[in-house]
Amino acid sequence: MREWILPEYIEDILPAEALHIEHMRRRVLDCLLVHGYELVGPPLLEFVESLLTGSGGDSDLQMFKVVDQSSGRMMGLRADMTPQVARIDAHLLNRKGVTRLCYAGSVLHSMPSGLTRTREPLQIGAELYGHSGLESDMEIQRLMLESLAIAGVGKIHLDLGHVAVFRGLVKGAGIPTESEAELFRALQAKDHHALGNLCGRLDNIDMQVRQGLLILPDLYGDEKILELAKKALPPYPDIIKALDELQLMGSQLKAIVDTLAFDLSDLRGYHYHSGLVFAAYTRNCSNAIALGGRYDEVGKAFGRARPATGFSMDLRELSGLVQRDLCPKGILAPYPAGNSALEGKIEQLRSEGSVVIVELPGHEQTQETFNYDRRLVLRDGEWVITEI
Amino acid sequence: MREWILPEYIEDILPAEALHIEHMRRRVLDCLLVHGYELVGPPLLEFVESLLTGSGGDSDLQMFKVVDQSSGRMMGLRADMTPQVARIDAHLLNRKGVTRLCYAGSVLHSMPSGLTRTREPLQIGAELYGHSGLESDMEIQRLMLESLAIAGVGKIHLDLGHVAVFRGLVKGAGIPTESEAELFRALQAKDHHALGNLCGRLDNIDMQVRQGLLILPDLYGDEKILELAKKALPPYPDIIKALDELQLMGSQLKAIVDTLAFDLSDLRGYHYHSGLVFAAYTRNCSNAIALGGRYDEVGKAFGRARPATGFSMDLRELSGLVQRDLCPKGILAPYPAGNSALEGKIEQLRSEGSVVIVELPGHEQTQETFNYDRRLVLRDGEWVITEI
Repeated sequence: MREWILPEYIEDILPAEALHIEHMRRRVLDCLLVHGYELVGPPLLEFVESLLTGSGGDSDLQMFKVVDQSSGRMMGLRADMTPQVARIDAHLLNRKGVTRLCYAGSVLHSMPSGLTRTREPLQIGAELYGHSGLESDMEIQRLMLESLAIAGVGKIHLDLGHVAVFRGLVKGAGIPTESEAELFRALQAKDHHALGNLCGRLDNIDMQVRQGLLILPDLYGDEKILELAKKALPPYPDIIKALDELQLMGSQLKAIVDTLAFDLSDLRGYHYHSGLVFAAYTRNCSNAIALGGRYDEVGKAFGRARPATGFSMDLRELSGLVQRDLCPKGILAPYPAGNSALEGKIEQLRSEGSVVIVELPGHEQTQETFNYDRRLVLRDGEWVITEI
Repeated sequence: MREWILPEYIEDILPAEALHIEHMRRRVLDCLLVHGYELVGPPLLEFVESLLTGSGGDSDLQMFKVVDQSSGRMMGLRADMTPQVARIDAHLLNRKGVTRLCYAGSVLHSMPSGLTRTREPLQIGAELYGHSGLESDMEIQRLMLESLAIAGVGKIHLDLGHVAVFRGLVKGAGIPTESEAELFRALQAKDHHALGNLCGRLDNIDMQVRQGLLILPDLYGDEKILELAKKALPPYPDIIKALDELQLMGSQLKAIVDTLAFDLSDLRGYHYHSGLVFAAYTRNCSNAIALGGRYDEVGKAFGRARPATGFSMDLRELSGLVQRDLCPKGILAPYPAGNSALEGKIEQLRSEGSVVIVELPGHEQTQETFNYDRRLVLRDGEWVITEI
């Protein structure tokens, strides 16, 4: 085996794409910053317990682990930055009011996930802490849509869900934890057969709850399914509230996305989400390109329960979906060799943002090896740019 | 032990510093880009053999290792991006002419190194391949100095060394490999006593080589030590050439640094460096703040020997040494609640680059929890900014 072959789902980012991702990163980050989101930089690795806290254990299998030589304890490489940012809000900043944070950085997955085909996504996102109203859910969703537009992704389809619907059924009917976990798996897989079997075994639950569980995978579509859900599901206050929230969000977001659907069996992140959840899709990509939702319970594990909602996306995934910026072509200049007029001209052009590549003695540049379309030449005693 | 405590030498970057580092990163990267260096993004981890190739094994102990579940092979978390960028030049780009590449990303060290106190430096740097002349060494050193200036670091002291001096002595005297390794360790530690013992045991070597080895740790200072070296060291062509190169570089760089010294026993990176090496220092920091040199042999291991020279630095270390940019203060706006005049004003301010924070219903912002110094208020039917 050749030594330079990379592991599966691990890739280098070559110049044209690297520059494009860098530009996307700056544009999206600038958008988050002008909305008042403060940038934080959590570490690439920390103790496993700390990374798992708040993610409900969801990322345990996904996480690479290494031994910390200075403590002997197990450290994990972050598979998701959200729990880290929640830790920063809960513990380090410890503010009373609303806190808005944003982040951008690489995360590592031990195996490629459904969300993306790389094991090294470049995660960028924003989190809003300390506000439990729908206004903050709305702010986060609008920010996600604006970020996608800035990144150059068009034709957005938005899926809205609410984990309180399933949770409400489970709580209302007093379903035991082990059955909840089995039901959860069946719903996630939209496996009607398994769902039917499980409901059949739960013989002491309310008929309307059983019907509700069985119909949940089919409650996907436009606002009509919310009406259907109100009729089909038991009238528990948590469920009614969830359906009302979905209706309100849908009516406000409909105008700013291309298509919108409700999905009452979307239980992604069920172990840490607590309210509205959402996922954005676009053409030519079967995976969600941005994800988010409310997860009020995360801070609790760090000693401070705070309402929280946020979104995140993978810039590497997005960069493959959009038209790349054209790489700016450079200007080729001769080696100055102490010629201060030429040195001054090169410096001036660079300070204006032009790429100037100096020819090194003995190595004539050829257009194949570098991306330039102009030359700096001496004409009538002055250094001027000529097209090639 | 509290779960949120971070491992030793691992830290969160909090808002004010994170924004400052982001600005430094952009400024330095833009400087490298306008000089014609193309951005690449090597992965955070790859197979250990590939990471060790070209670094002469120097980073083996420094590297965290994990098992790749899809191949069963050992992967390492990069401790240095330079060998990765050399791999990209040698294998992926495979160009004939001069290639200039730059990079910025986190690296991980299993234990904190001398260069920095963090185990997660943010490495940024530039590499020039395919040119063996001093002009490319000069270009890289000037670029390093410009990058430091742009990052806000002043009062630079530059140390210049050349690994061909020690290598020339070893080769010329035919010193066996095991003694070379022992001499190397003694020289690195500037341990005169050990050096004396080792030289005493090498009884069949030329007297002038022995003298040369013994005097090497003292050959540190201004250009006078180059004259001294020419007299004291044996007149092997490699050594004479190295001293001439040092002299020429010193004379050209003297004007653009605050102080400059030659250090003939600087053998940092000896296992992969092959020519001029350099290190930059500043006040209030005993570690080198930027490092680099020539390493013509690195590409060879990837099947393609190419002349190469480059530099790198740690933005986290630098950010602690310079005056931080003042964080821009934001403008606080009331919740628009569908007021399109207010929404338009907020959007306009943000598009101009102002940070506008919206007050969420039920949560009055206080100046303690967010960084703002102006308010958007309605006056005579128009939304205007007022100072607080």
